[in-house]
Amino acid sequence: MKIIKAIKNMRQLSKKAKTHNNIIGLVPTMGYLHEGHLSLIHRAKNDCDVVVMSIFVNPTQFAPEEDLKKYPRDFDMDRKLAESAGVDVIFYPDTKHIYTKDFSTFVSVENMDKIWEGKTRLAHFKGVCTIVGKLFNIIDPDVAYFGQKDAQQTAIIKRMVKDLNFNIKIVAMPTVREKDGLAMSSRNKYLSSEERKAALVLYRSLQEAEGMIKNREKRSDNVLKRIRSMVKKERLARLDYASIVNHKDFSSVSEISKTSLIIITCYIGKTRLIDNLVVV
Amino acid sequence: MKIIKAIKNMRQLSKKAKTHNNIIGLVPTMGYLHEGHLSLIHRAKNDCDVVVMSIFVNPTQFAPEEDLKKYPRDFDMDRKLAESAGVDVIFYPDTKHIYTKDFSTFVSVENMDKIWEGKTRLAHFKGVCTIVGKLFNIIDPDVAYFGQKDAQQTAIIKRMVKDLNFNIKIVAMPTVREKDGLAMSSRNKYLSSEERKAALVLYRSLQEAEGMIKNREKRSDNVLKRIRSMVKKERLARLDYASIVNHKDFSSVSEISKTSLIIITCYIGKTRLIDNLVVV
Repeated sequence: MKIIKAIKNMRQLSKKAKTHNNIIGLVPTMGYLHEGHLSLIHRAKNDCDVVVMSIFVNPTQFAPEEDLKKYPRDFDMDRKLAESAGVDVIFYPDTKHIYTKDFSTFVSVENMDKIWEGKTRLAHFKGVCTIVGKLFNIIDPDVAYFGQKDAQQTAIIKRMVKDLNFNIKIVAMPTVREKDGLAMSSRNKYLSSEERKAALVLYRSLQEAEGMIKNREKRSDNVLKRIRSMVKKERLARLDYASIVNHKDFSSVSEISKTSLIIITCYIGKTRLIDNLVVV
Repeated sequence: MKIIKAIKNMRQLSKKAKTHNNIIGLVPTMGYLHEGHLSLIHRAKNDCDVVVMSIFVNPTQFAPEEDLKKYPRDFDMDRKLAESAGVDVIFYPDTKHIYTKDFSTFVSVENMDKIWEGKTRLAHFKGVCTIVGKLFNIIDPDVAYFGQKDAQQTAIIKRMVKDLNFNIKIVAMPTVREKDGLAMSSRNKYLSSEERKAALVLYRSLQEAEGMIKNREKRSDNVLKRIRSMVKKERLARLDYASIVNHKDFSSVSEISKTSLIIITCYIGKTRLIDNLVVV
Protein backbone atom coordinates (compact mmCIF):
# COMPACT_ATOMS: atom_id res chain seq x y z
CA MET A 1 0.00 0.00 0.00
CA LYS A 2 1.27 3.44 -0.95
CA ILE A 3 0.78 6.58 1.09
CA ILE A 4 0.80 9.66 -1.12
CA LYS A 5 0.79 13.20 0.20
CA ALA A 6 1.66 15.29 -2.86
CA ILE A 7 -1.08 16.14 -5.37
CA LYS A 8 1.42 15.80 -8.21
CA ASN A 9 2.34 12.25 -7.18
CA MET A 10 -1.30 11.27 -6.85
CA ARG A 11 -1.97 12.54 -10.38
CA GLN A 12 1.01 10.58 -11.71
CA LEU A 13 -0.18 7.35 -10.15
CA SER A 14 -3.68 7.80 -11.56
CA LYS A 15 -2.36 8.68 -14.98
CA LYS A 16 -0.22 5.55 -15.01
CA ALA A 17 -3.16 3.41 -13.89
CA LYS A 18 -5.27 4.88 -16.70
CA THR A 19 -2.67 4.08 -19.36
CA HIS A 20 -2.94 0.46 -18.21
CA ASN A 21 -6.73 0.71 -18.52
CA ASN A 22 -7.05 0.14 -14.80
CA ILE A 23 -10.36 1.07 -13.20
CA ILE A 24 -9.76 3.46 -10.30
CA GLY A 25 -12.11 3.42 -7.32
CA LEU A 26 -12.13 6.27 -4.81
CA VAL A 27 -13.28 6.05 -1.21
CA PRO A 28 -13.19 9.62 0.15
CA THR A 29 -12.98 9.74 3.96
CA MET A 30 -12.11 12.03 6.83
CA GLY A 31 -10.29 9.12 8.47
CA TYR A 32 -11.00 7.49 11.83
CA LEU A 33 -12.25 4.51 9.89
CA HIS A 34 -15.05 2.26 11.03
CA GLU A 35 -16.92 -0.69 9.53
CA GLY A 36 -18.92 1.71 7.38
CA HIS A 37 -15.79 2.90 5.59
CA LEU A 38 -14.53 -0.67 5.33
CA SER A 39 -17.72 -1.74 3.55
CA LEU A 40 -17.01 0.96 0.93
CA ILE A 41 -13.43 -0.29 0.56
CA HIS A 42 -14.56 -3.89 0.18
CA ARG A 43 -17.01 -2.93 -2.53
CA ALA A 44 -14.37 -0.81 -4.30
CA LYS A 45 -11.92 -3.70 -4.05
CA ASN A 46 -14.50 -5.91 -5.69
CA ASP A 47 -15.25 -3.44 -8.54
CA CYS A 48 -11.92 -1.79 -9.31
CA ASP A 49 -8.28 -2.47 -10.16
CA VAL A 50 -6.87 0.32 -8.03
CA VAL A 51 -8.52 1.43 -4.79
CA VAL A 52 -7.60 4.91 -3.59
CA MET A 53 -8.78 6.00 -0.18
CA SER A 54 -8.41 9.68 0.65
CA ILE A 55 -8.07 10.84 4.24
CA PHE A 56 -8.67 14.54 4.63
CA VAL A 57 -10.49 16.31 7.45
CA ASN A 58 -11.94 19.03 5.27
CA PRO A 59 -12.07 22.39 7.04
CA THR A 60 -14.50 24.02 4.56
CA GLN A 61 -17.29 21.65 5.54
CA PHE A 62 -17.13 22.56 9.23
CA ALA A 63 -18.75 25.74 10.55
CA PRO A 64 -16.55 27.86 12.84
CA GLU A 65 -18.31 26.58 15.98
CA GLU A 66 -18.22 22.94 14.88
CA ASP A 67 -15.87 20.10 15.81
CA LEU A 68 -13.06 20.53 13.23
CA LYS A 69 -10.31 20.73 15.83
CA LYS A 70 -11.51 17.88 17.98
CA TYR A 71 -12.68 15.71 15.08
CA PRO A 72 -11.13 12.30 15.86
CA ARG A 73 -7.92 11.45 14.01
CA ASP A 74 -5.78 8.30 14.15
CA PHE A 75 -3.67 7.89 11.07
CA ASP A 76 -1.82 4.81 12.31
CA MET A 77 -5.04 2.95 12.97
CA ASP A 78 -6.45 4.09 9.60
CA ARG A 79 -3.32 2.96 7.79
CA LYS A 80 -3.50 -0.52 9.31
CA LEU A 81 -7.23 -0.91 8.67
CA ALA A 82 -6.88 0.35 5.10
CA GLU A 83 -3.98 -1.95 4.35
CA SER A 84 -5.74 -5.04 5.65
CA ALA A 85 -8.89 -4.10 3.72
CA GLY A 86 -6.84 -4.01 0.54
CA VAL A 87 -6.53 -0.28 -0.16
CA ASP A 88 -3.81 0.31 -2.78
CA VAL A 89 -3.21 4.00 -2.14
CA ILE A 90 -3.97 6.31 0.75
CA PHE A 91 -4.10 9.89 -0.50
CA TYR A 92 -3.33 11.95 2.57
CA PRO A 93 -2.70 15.55 1.51
CA ASP A 94 -1.77 18.51 3.69
CA THR A 95 -4.45 21.13 4.23
CA LYS A 96 -2.14 23.89 3.01
CA HIS A 97 -1.78 22.17 -0.36
CA ILE A 98 -5.50 21.56 -0.75
CA TYR A 99 -6.46 25.08 0.28
CA THR A 100 -3.78 27.46 -0.85
CA LYS A 101 -3.64 31.01 0.47
CA ASP A 102 -5.77 32.62 -2.26
CA PHE A 103 -8.25 29.77 -2.53
CA SER A 104 -11.69 31.10 -3.45
CA THR A 105 -13.53 28.68 -5.75
CA PHE A 106 -16.51 26.70 -4.50
CA VAL A 107 -18.94 24.19 -5.94
CA SER A 108 -22.48 24.15 -4.67
CA VAL A 109 -25.67 22.28 -5.35
CA GLU A 110 -28.14 25.07 -4.81
CA ASN A 111 -31.43 24.61 -2.94
CA MET A 112 -30.61 21.06 -1.81
CA ASP A 113 -27.68 22.47 0.15
CA LYS A 114 -29.93 24.79 2.17
CA ILE A 115 -32.33 22.22 3.65
CA TRP A 116 -32.07 19.66 6.50
CA GLU A 117 -28.36 19.18 7.18
CA GLY A 118 -27.68 22.29 5.13
CA LYS A 119 -30.01 24.38 7.25
CA THR A 120 -28.34 23.45 10.52
CA ARG A 121 -24.87 23.27 9.04
CA LEU A 122 -24.56 26.37 6.86
CA ALA A 123 -22.04 26.04 4.02
CA HIS A 124 -21.47 22.39 4.98
CA PHE A 125 -22.45 20.94 1.61
CA LYS A 126 -20.64 23.67 -0.30
CA GLY A 127 -17.51 22.50 1.52
CA VAL A 128 -18.31 18.87 0.77
CA CYS A 129 -18.95 19.46 -2.94
CA THR A 130 -15.82 21.56 -3.26
CA ILE A 131 -13.49 19.02 -1.68
CA VAL A 132 -15.11 16.11 -3.54
CA GLY A 133 -14.82 18.00 -6.83
CA LYS A 134 -11.16 18.64 -6.08
CA LEU A 135 -10.52 14.99 -5.19
CA PHE A 136 -12.27 13.93 -8.39
CA ASN A 137 -10.00 16.22 -10.43
CA ILE A 138 -6.84 15.10 -8.65
CA ILE A 139 -7.52 11.35 -8.51
CA ASP A 140 -9.62 11.00 -11.69
CA PRO A 141 -11.53 7.94 -10.44
CA ASP A 142 -13.95 5.86 -12.52
CA VAL A 143 -16.10 5.07 -9.50
CA ALA A 144 -16.51 6.76 -6.13
CA TYR A 145 -18.09 5.25 -3.04
CA PHE A 146 -20.25 7.02 -0.47
CA GLY A 147 -22.25 5.81 2.52
CA GLN A 148 -26.03 5.85 2.63
CA LYS A 149 -25.73 7.00 6.24
CA ASP A 150 -24.93 10.47 4.93
CA ALA A 151 -27.93 10.26 2.65
CA GLN A 152 -28.26 13.93 1.78
CA GLN A 153 -24.53 14.19 1.07
CA THR A 154 -24.70 11.21 -1.25
CA ALA A 155 -27.75 12.61 -3.07
CA ILE A 156 -26.02 15.98 -3.45
CA ILE A 157 -22.85 14.38 -4.80
CA LYS A 158 -24.93 12.43 -7.33
CA ARG A 159 -26.59 15.69 -8.40
CA MET A 160 -23.20 17.43 -8.68
CA VAL A 161 -21.72 14.63 -10.77
CA LYS A 162 -24.67 14.72 -13.15
CA ASP A 163 -24.83 18.52 -13.38
CA LEU A 164 -21.10 19.12 -13.84
CA ASN A 165 -20.63 16.11 -16.14
CA PHE A 166 -18.03 14.35 -14.04
CA ASN A 167 -17.45 11.03 -15.82
CA ILE A 168 -17.65 9.12 -12.54
CA LYS A 169 -20.06 6.48 -11.29
CA ILE A 170 -21.32 7.10 -7.74
CA VAL A 171 -22.04 4.02 -5.65
CA ALA A 172 -23.97 4.43 -2.38
CA MET A 173 -23.45 1.63 0.13
CA PRO A 174 -25.94 0.72 2.88
CA THR A 175 -25.46 2.07 6.38
CA VAL A 176 -23.41 -0.26 8.57
CA ARG A 177 -24.70 -0.53 12.14
CA GLU A 178 -23.43 -1.62 15.52
CA LYS A 179 -25.00 -4.85 16.80
CA ASP A 180 -27.69 -2.91 18.61
CA GLY A 181 -28.52 -0.82 15.54
CA LEU A 182 -26.64 2.44 16.09
CA ALA A 183 -25.34 3.69 12.72
CA MET A 184 -21.54 3.61 12.59
CA SER A 185 -20.06 7.10 12.76
CA SER A 186 -16.72 8.56 13.73
CA ARG A 187 -18.66 10.92 15.97
CA ASN A 188 -20.00 8.02 18.12
CA LYS A 189 -16.67 8.30 19.88
CA TYR A 190 -17.89 11.49 21.55
CA LEU A 191 -20.71 9.65 23.41
CA SER A 192 -20.53 8.82 27.12
CA SER A 193 -21.79 5.33 27.99
CA GLU A 194 -25.14 6.77 29.06
CA GLU A 195 -25.40 8.80 25.85
CA ARG A 196 -24.42 5.73 23.86
CA LYS A 197 -27.57 4.02 25.14
CA ALA A 198 -29.70 7.09 24.47
CA ALA A 199 -28.33 7.32 20.92
CA LEU A 200 -30.25 4.18 20.08
CA VAL A 201 -33.38 6.30 19.90
CA LEU A 202 -32.54 7.21 16.30
CA TYR A 203 -32.51 3.61 15.12
CA ARG A 204 -35.46 2.59 17.30
CA SER A 205 -37.64 5.36 15.94
CA LEU A 206 -36.67 4.49 12.37
CA GLN A 207 -37.58 0.87 13.09
CA GLU A 208 -40.88 1.97 14.56
CA ALA A 209 -41.53 4.02 11.42
CA GLU A 210 -40.65 1.03 9.28
CA GLY A 211 -43.14 -1.08 11.20
CA MET A 212 -45.90 1.47 10.67
CA ILE A 213 -45.16 1.65 6.94
CA LYS A 214 -45.20 -2.15 6.70
CA ASN A 215 -48.62 -1.93 8.29
CA ARG A 216 -49.74 0.25 5.37
CA GLU A 217 -49.35 3.66 7.00
CA LYS A 218 -49.01 6.06 4.07
CA ARG A 219 -49.20 9.45 5.77
CA SER A 220 -45.90 11.07 6.65
CA ASP A 221 -47.37 13.18 9.47
CA ASN A 222 -48.58 10.10 11.34
CA VAL A 223 -45.17 8.47 11.13
CA LEU A 224 -43.34 11.65 12.09
CA LYS A 225 -45.63 12.20 15.08
CA ARG A 226 -44.63 8.77 16.40
CA ILE A 227 -40.93 9.46 15.82
CA ARG A 228 -41.16 12.80 17.62
CA SER A 229 -42.89 11.31 20.61
CA MET A 230 -40.28 8.55 20.88
CA VAL A 231 -37.41 11.05 20.82
CA LYS A 232 -39.22 13.22 23.38
CA LYS A 233 -39.25 10.33 25.84
CA GLU A 234 -35.46 9.97 25.67
CA ARG A 235 -34.10 12.36 28.28
CA LEU A 236 -30.63 12.79 26.72
CA ALA A 237 -31.92 13.23 23.18
CA ARG A 238 -33.12 16.40 21.47
CA LEU A 239 -34.60 16.17 18.01
CA ASP A 240 -33.03 18.51 15.43
CA TYR A 241 -35.30 17.38 12.60
CA ALA A 242 -37.19 14.36 11.33
CA SER A 243 -38.83 14.23 7.94
CA ILE A 244 -39.91 11.97 5.14
CA VAL A 245 -38.45 13.15 1.86
CA ASN A 246 -38.00 12.27 -1.78
CA HIS A 247 -34.70 10.37 -1.94
CA LYS A 248 -33.40 12.38 -4.90
CA ASP A 249 -34.10 16.02 -4.08
CA PHE A 250 -34.90 15.75 -0.35
CA SER A 251 -38.17 17.64 -0.66
CA SER A 252 -40.70 16.65 2.03
CA VAL A 253 -43.46 14.31 0.95
CA SER A 254 -46.84 14.02 2.63
CA GLU A 255 -47.51 10.55 1.22
CA ILE A 256 -44.96 7.78 1.68
CA SER A 257 -43.85 5.82 -1.39
CA LYS A 258 -40.97 3.67 -2.58
CA THR A 259 -38.94 6.77 -3.46
CA SER A 260 -39.19 8.04 0.13
CA LEU A 261 -36.52 8.29 2.73
CA ILE A 262 -37.04 8.85 6.46
CA ILE A 263 -34.40 11.17 7.84
CA ILE A 264 -33.70 11.95 11.47
CA THR A 265 -31.12 14.00 13.30
CA CYS A 266 -30.76 14.28 17.06
CA TYR A 267 -28.46 15.86 19.54
CA ILE A 268 -27.42 13.26 22.09
CA GLY A 269 -25.93 15.46 24.77
CA LYS A 270 -23.69 17.72 22.68
CA THR A 271 -23.14 15.18 19.91
CA ARG A 272 -25.19 15.54 16.76
CA LEU A 273 -26.05 12.21 15.13
CA ILE A 274 -27.86 11.53 11.87
CA ASP A 275 -29.57 8.45 10.53
CA ASN A 276 -32.05 7.50 7.84
CA LEU A 277 -34.07 4.66 6.46
CA VAL A 278 -34.88 3.89 2.85
CA VAL A 279 -38.53 2.96 2.45
CA VAL A 280 -38.78 -0.32 0.54
CA MET B 1 -13.88 18.31 -39.34
CA LYS B 2 -16.44 16.60 -37.11
CA ILE B 3 -19.51 18.27 -35.64
CA ILE B 4 -20.58 16.60 -32.42
CA LYS B 5 -23.78 17.40 -30.59
CA ALA B 6 -24.08 14.55 -28.07
CA ILE B 7 -22.10 14.71 -24.82
CA LYS B 8 -21.55 10.96 -24.96
CA ASN B 9 -20.00 11.15 -28.43
CA MET B 10 -17.76 14.02 -27.39
CA ARG B 11 -16.52 11.97 -24.42
CA GLN B 12 -15.82 8.99 -26.68
CA LEU B 13 -13.79 11.05 -29.10
CA SER B 14 -11.72 12.55 -26.27
CA LYS B 15 -11.19 9.18 -24.67
CA LYS B 16 -9.95 7.74 -27.95
CA ALA B 17 -7.63 10.70 -28.47
CA LYS B 18 -6.21 10.19 -24.98
CA THR B 19 -5.50 6.50 -25.57
CA HIS B 20 -3.40 7.63 -28.54
CA ASN B 21 -1.62 10.10 -26.25
CA ASN B 22 -2.99 12.97 -28.31
CA ILE B 23 -2.93 16.41 -26.72
CA ILE B 24 -6.41 17.93 -26.78
CA GLY B 25 -6.82 21.69 -27.04
CA LEU B 26 -10.15 23.35 -26.26
CA VAL B 27 -11.31 26.71 -27.59
CA PRO B 28 -14.60 27.47 -25.81
CA THR B 29 -16.75 29.98 -27.69
CA MET B 30 -20.30 31.25 -27.95
CA GLY B 31 -19.94 31.22 -31.74
CA TYR B 32 -20.19 34.15 -34.15
CA LEU B 33 -16.47 33.80 -34.65
CA HIS B 34 -14.13 36.68 -35.34
CA GLU B 35 -10.37 37.07 -35.69
CA GLY B 36 -10.01 36.89 -31.91
CA HIS B 37 -11.42 33.37 -31.83
CA LEU B 38 -9.34 32.42 -34.85
CA SER B 39 -6.15 33.48 -33.07
CA LEU B 40 -7.03 31.04 -30.28
CA ILE B 41 -7.64 28.29 -32.81
CA HIS B 42 -4.34 28.96 -34.57
CA ARG B 43 -2.47 28.78 -31.29
CA ALA B 44 -4.31 25.57 -30.31
CA LYS B 45 -3.53 24.11 -33.73
CA ASN B 46 0.10 24.87 -33.12
CA ASP B 47 0.19 23.34 -29.62
CA CYS B 48 -2.16 20.34 -29.81
CA ASP B 49 -2.96 17.17 -31.75
CA VAL B 50 -6.71 17.57 -31.58
CA VAL B 51 -8.40 20.97 -31.54
CA VAL B 52 -11.94 21.03 -30.17
CA MET B 53 -13.93 24.22 -30.46
CA SER B 54 -17.15 24.41 -28.48
CA ILE B 55 -20.00 26.63 -29.62
CA PHE B 56 -22.56 27.19 -26.91
CA VAL B 57 -24.42 30.39 -26.11
CA ASN B 58 -24.56 29.79 -22.38
CA PRO B 59 -27.82 31.00 -20.84
CA THR B 60 -26.53 30.94 -17.22
CA GLN B 61 -24.04 33.71 -17.92
CA PHE B 62 -26.68 36.13 -19.17
CA ALA B 63 -28.87 38.08 -16.74
CA PRO B 64 -32.61 38.05 -17.54
CA GLU B 65 -32.48 41.55 -19.05
CA GLU B 66 -29.36 40.85 -21.11
CA ASP B 67 -28.94 39.94 -24.77
CA LEU B 68 -29.22 36.11 -24.67
CA LYS B 69 -32.00 35.96 -27.25
CA LYS B 70 -30.53 38.44 -29.67
CA TYR B 71 -26.92 37.32 -29.16
CA PRO B 72 -25.64 36.88 -32.73
CA ARG B 73 -25.57 33.33 -34.07
CA ASP B 74 -24.42 32.02 -37.45
CA PHE B 75 -23.51 28.36 -37.31
CA ASP B 76 -22.83 28.04 -41.05
CA MET B 77 -20.34 30.86 -41.00
CA ASP B 78 -18.75 29.48 -37.81
CA ARG B 79 -18.46 26.02 -39.35
CA LYS B 80 -16.69 27.35 -42.43
CA LEU B 81 -14.33 29.56 -40.46
CA ALA B 82 -13.54 26.77 -38.00
CA GLU B 83 -12.87 24.27 -40.75
CA SER B 84 -10.53 26.55 -42.64
CA ALA B 85 -8.72 27.42 -39.40
CA GLY B 86 -8.08 23.70 -38.85
CA VAL B 87 -10.52 22.86 -36.05
CA ASP B 88 -10.87 19.07 -35.76
CA VAL B 89 -14.11 18.95 -33.79
CA ILE B 90 -16.90 21.43 -33.21
CA PHE B 91 -18.74 20.51 -30.02
CA TYR B 92 -22.18 22.03 -30.47
CA PRO B 93 -24.49 20.71 -27.77
CA ASP B 94 -28.17 21.44 -27.24
CA THR B 95 -29.05 23.65 -24.29
CA LYS B 96 -31.47 21.04 -22.94
CA HIS B 97 -28.67 18.49 -22.69
CA ILE B 98 -26.29 20.89 -21.01
CA TYR B 99 -28.87 22.18 -18.54
CA THR B 100 -31.26 19.38 -17.71
CA LYS B 101 -34.53 20.08 -15.95
CA ASP B 102 -33.26 19.61 -12.37
CA PHE B 103 -29.91 21.29 -12.96
CA SER B 104 -28.77 23.05 -9.79
CA THR B 105 -24.98 22.84 -9.40
CA PHE B 106 -22.80 25.91 -9.84
CA VAL B 107 -19.13 26.74 -9.63
CA SER B 108 -18.09 30.16 -8.45
CA VAL B 109 -14.90 32.03 -7.77
CA GLU B 110 -16.01 34.07 -4.81
CA ASN B 111 -15.09 37.75 -4.34
CA MET B 112 -13.54 38.08 -7.79
CA ASP B 113 -16.93 37.32 -9.31
CA LYS B 114 -18.57 40.25 -7.51
CA ILE B 115 -16.37 43.08 -8.77
CA TRP B 116 -16.15 45.00 -12.08
CA GLU B 117 -17.89 42.85 -14.70
CA GLY B 118 -19.37 40.79 -11.86
CA LYS B 119 -20.87 43.87 -10.23
CA THR B 120 -22.70 45.00 -13.35
CA ARG B 121 -23.45 41.49 -14.56
CA LEU B 122 -24.67 39.63 -11.46
CA ALA B 123 -24.16 35.85 -11.61
CA HIS B 124 -22.33 36.26 -14.94
CA PHE B 125 -19.07 34.67 -13.79
CA LYS B 126 -20.88 31.93 -11.90
CA GLY B 127 -22.48 31.01 -15.22
CA VAL B 128 -19.11 31.19 -16.98
CA CYS B 129 -17.30 29.03 -14.41
CA THR B 130 -20.12 26.50 -14.40
CA ILE B 131 -20.21 26.04 -18.18
CA VAL B 132 -16.41 26.01 -18.45
CA GLY B 133 -16.19 23.41 -15.66
CA LYS B 134 -18.76 21.30 -17.49
CA LEU B 135 -16.93 21.61 -20.81
CA PHE B 136 -13.68 20.66 -19.07
CA ASN B 137 -15.33 17.53 -17.66
CA ILE B 138 -16.94 16.57 -20.95
CA ILE B 139 -14.03 17.28 -23.29
CA ASP B 140 -11.13 16.56 -20.88
CA PRO B 141 -8.70 18.92 -22.64
CA ASP B 142 -5.00 19.26 -21.84
CA VAL B 143 -4.98 22.95 -22.75
CA ALA B 144 -7.76 25.53 -23.01
CA TYR B 145 -7.51 28.90 -24.76
CA PHE B 146 -9.10 32.16 -23.67
CA GLY B 147 -8.85 35.72 -24.93
CA GLN B 148 -7.15 38.49 -23.00
CA LYS B 149 -9.98 40.76 -24.14
CA ASP B 150 -12.16 39.14 -21.48
CA ALA B 151 -9.40 39.68 -18.95
CA GLN B 152 -11.42 39.18 -15.78
CA GLN B 153 -12.99 36.02 -17.17
CA THR B 154 -9.58 34.62 -18.04
CA ALA B 155 -8.20 35.48 -14.59
CA ILE B 156 -11.22 33.85 -12.93
CA ILE B 157 -10.88 30.70 -15.03
CA LYS B 158 -7.21 30.48 -14.08
CA ARG B 159 -8.18 30.81 -10.40
CA MET B 160 -10.87 28.11 -10.81
CA VAL B 161 -8.49 25.71 -12.52
CA LYS B 162 -5.94 26.14 -9.76
CA ASP B 163 -8.45 25.95 -6.90
CA LEU B 164 -10.39 22.95 -8.19
CA ASN B 165 -7.27 21.12 -9.41
CA PHE B 166 -8.32 20.80 -13.02
CA ASN B 167 -5.32 19.27 -14.78
CA ILE B 168 -5.56 21.77 -17.62
CA LYS B 169 -3.21 24.46 -18.82
CA ILE B 170 -4.89 27.82 -19.49
CA VAL B 171 -3.44 29.91 -22.29
CA ALA B 172 -4.52 33.56 -22.61
CA MET B 173 -4.07 35.06 -26.06
CA PRO B 174 -3.66 38.80 -26.77
CA THR B 175 -6.66 40.86 -27.79
CA VAL B 176 -7.11 41.03 -31.55
CA ARG B 177 -8.14 44.46 -32.83
CA GLU B 178 -9.71 45.95 -35.92
CA LYS B 179 -7.32 48.10 -37.97
CA ASP B 180 -8.40 51.22 -36.11
CA GLY B 181 -7.90 49.56 -32.72
CA LEU B 182 -11.40 48.47 -31.68
CA ALA B 183 -11.16 45.15 -29.82
CA MET B 184 -12.84 42.35 -31.78
CA SER B 185 -16.11 41.28 -30.19
CA SER B 186 -19.23 39.52 -31.38
CA ARG B 187 -21.16 42.39 -29.83
CA ASN B 188 -19.58 44.96 -32.22
CA LYS B 189 -22.26 43.80 -34.63
CA TYR B 190 -24.81 45.73 -32.57
CA LEU B 191 -23.13 49.09 -33.31
CA SER B 192 -24.54 51.59 -35.80
CA SER B 193 -21.92 53.23 -38.02
CA GLU B 194 -21.92 56.30 -35.81
CA GLU B 195 -21.60 54.18 -32.68
CA ARG B 196 -18.84 52.20 -34.35
CA LYS B 197 -16.80 55.41 -34.53
CA ALA B 198 -17.64 56.35 -30.94
CA ALA B 199 -16.59 52.87 -29.76
CA LEU B 200 -13.00 53.77 -30.55
CA VAL B 201 -12.95 55.81 -27.35
CA LEU B 202 -12.11 52.65 -25.37
CA TYR B 203 -8.96 51.95 -27.34
CA ARG B 204 -7.98 55.58 -27.59
CA SER B 205 -8.22 56.11 -23.85
CA LEU B 206 -6.19 52.94 -23.22
CA GLN B 207 -3.55 54.23 -25.63
CA GLU B 208 -3.56 57.58 -23.87
CA ALA B 209 -3.08 55.76 -20.56
CA GLU B 210 -0.25 53.73 -22.06
CA GLY B 211 1.43 56.94 -23.19
CA MET B 212 1.19 58.44 -19.71
CA ILE B 213 2.65 55.30 -18.14
CA LYS B 214 5.50 55.29 -20.65
CA ASN B 215 6.15 58.85 -19.52
CA ARG B 216 6.64 57.52 -15.96
CA GLU B 217 3.16 58.25 -14.58
CA LYS B 218 2.79 55.87 -11.64
CA ARG B 219 -0.40 57.08 -10.02
CA SER B 220 -3.59 55.26 -11.03
CA ASP B 221 -5.83 58.22 -10.18
CA ASN B 222 -4.01 60.52 -12.62
CA VAL B 223 -4.36 58.00 -15.43
CA LEU B 224 -7.99 57.26 -14.63
CA LYS B 225 -8.84 60.96 -14.52
CA ARG B 226 -7.57 61.29 -18.09
CA ILE B 227 -9.51 58.23 -19.23
CA ARG B 228 -12.72 59.52 -17.66
CA SER B 229 -12.36 62.91 -19.27
CA MET B 230 -11.79 61.31 -22.69
CA VAL B 231 -14.90 59.17 -22.39
CA LYS B 232 -16.92 62.16 -21.20
CA LYS B 233 -16.11 64.00 -24.42
CA GLU B 234 -17.56 61.19 -26.54
CA ARG B 235 -21.27 61.96 -26.86
CA LEU B 236 -22.40 58.38 -27.60
CA ALA B 237 -20.27 56.81 -24.87
CA ARG B 238 -21.10 56.36 -21.21
CA LEU B 239 -18.44 54.99 -18.88
CA ASP B 240 -19.49 51.99 -16.79
CA TYR B 241 -16.16 51.65 -15.04
CA ALA B 242 -12.45 52.22 -15.54
CA SER B 243 -9.83 51.02 -13.12
CA ILE B 244 -6.25 49.92 -12.77
CA VAL B 245 -6.08 46.53 -11.09
CA ASN B 246 -3.78 43.70 -10.14
CA HIS B 247 -3.90 41.30 -13.10
CA LYS B 248 -4.42 38.23 -10.90
CA ASP B 249 -7.11 39.18 -8.40
CA PHE B 250 -8.46 42.35 -10.02
CA SER B 251 -8.11 44.40 -6.84
CA SER B 252 -7.60 48.12 -7.54
CA VAL B 253 -4.07 49.42 -7.23
CA SER B 254 -3.12 53.01 -6.51
CA GLU B 255 0.39 52.64 -7.88
CA ILE B 256 0.92 51.24 -11.38
CA SER B 257 3.39 48.38 -11.80
CA LYS B 258 4.18 45.55 -14.23
CA THR B 259 1.45 43.39 -12.68
CA SER B 260 -1.19 46.03 -13.43
CA LEU B 261 -3.98 45.95 -15.92
CA ILE B 262 -6.06 48.90 -17.08
CA ILE B 263 -9.69 47.91 -17.51
CA ILE B 264 -12.45 49.93 -19.11
CA THR B 265 -16.08 49.30 -19.91
CA CYS B 266 -18.41 51.66 -21.73
CA TYR B 267 -21.90 51.69 -23.04
CA ILE B 268 -21.86 52.82 -26.65
CA GLY B 269 -25.53 53.54 -27.19
CA LYS B 270 -27.12 50.41 -25.76
CA THR B 271 -24.13 48.18 -26.45
CA ARG B 272 -21.77 47.43 -23.60
CA LEU B 273 -18.14 47.03 -24.68
CA ILE B 274 -15.12 46.06 -22.61
CA ASP B 275 -11.42 46.45 -23.23
CA ASN B 276 -8.19 46.37 -21.28
CA LEU B 277 -4.50 46.96 -21.54
CA VAL B 278 -1.69 45.03 -19.90
CA VAL B 279 0.92 47.38 -18.46
CA VAL B 280 4.37 46.34 -19.69
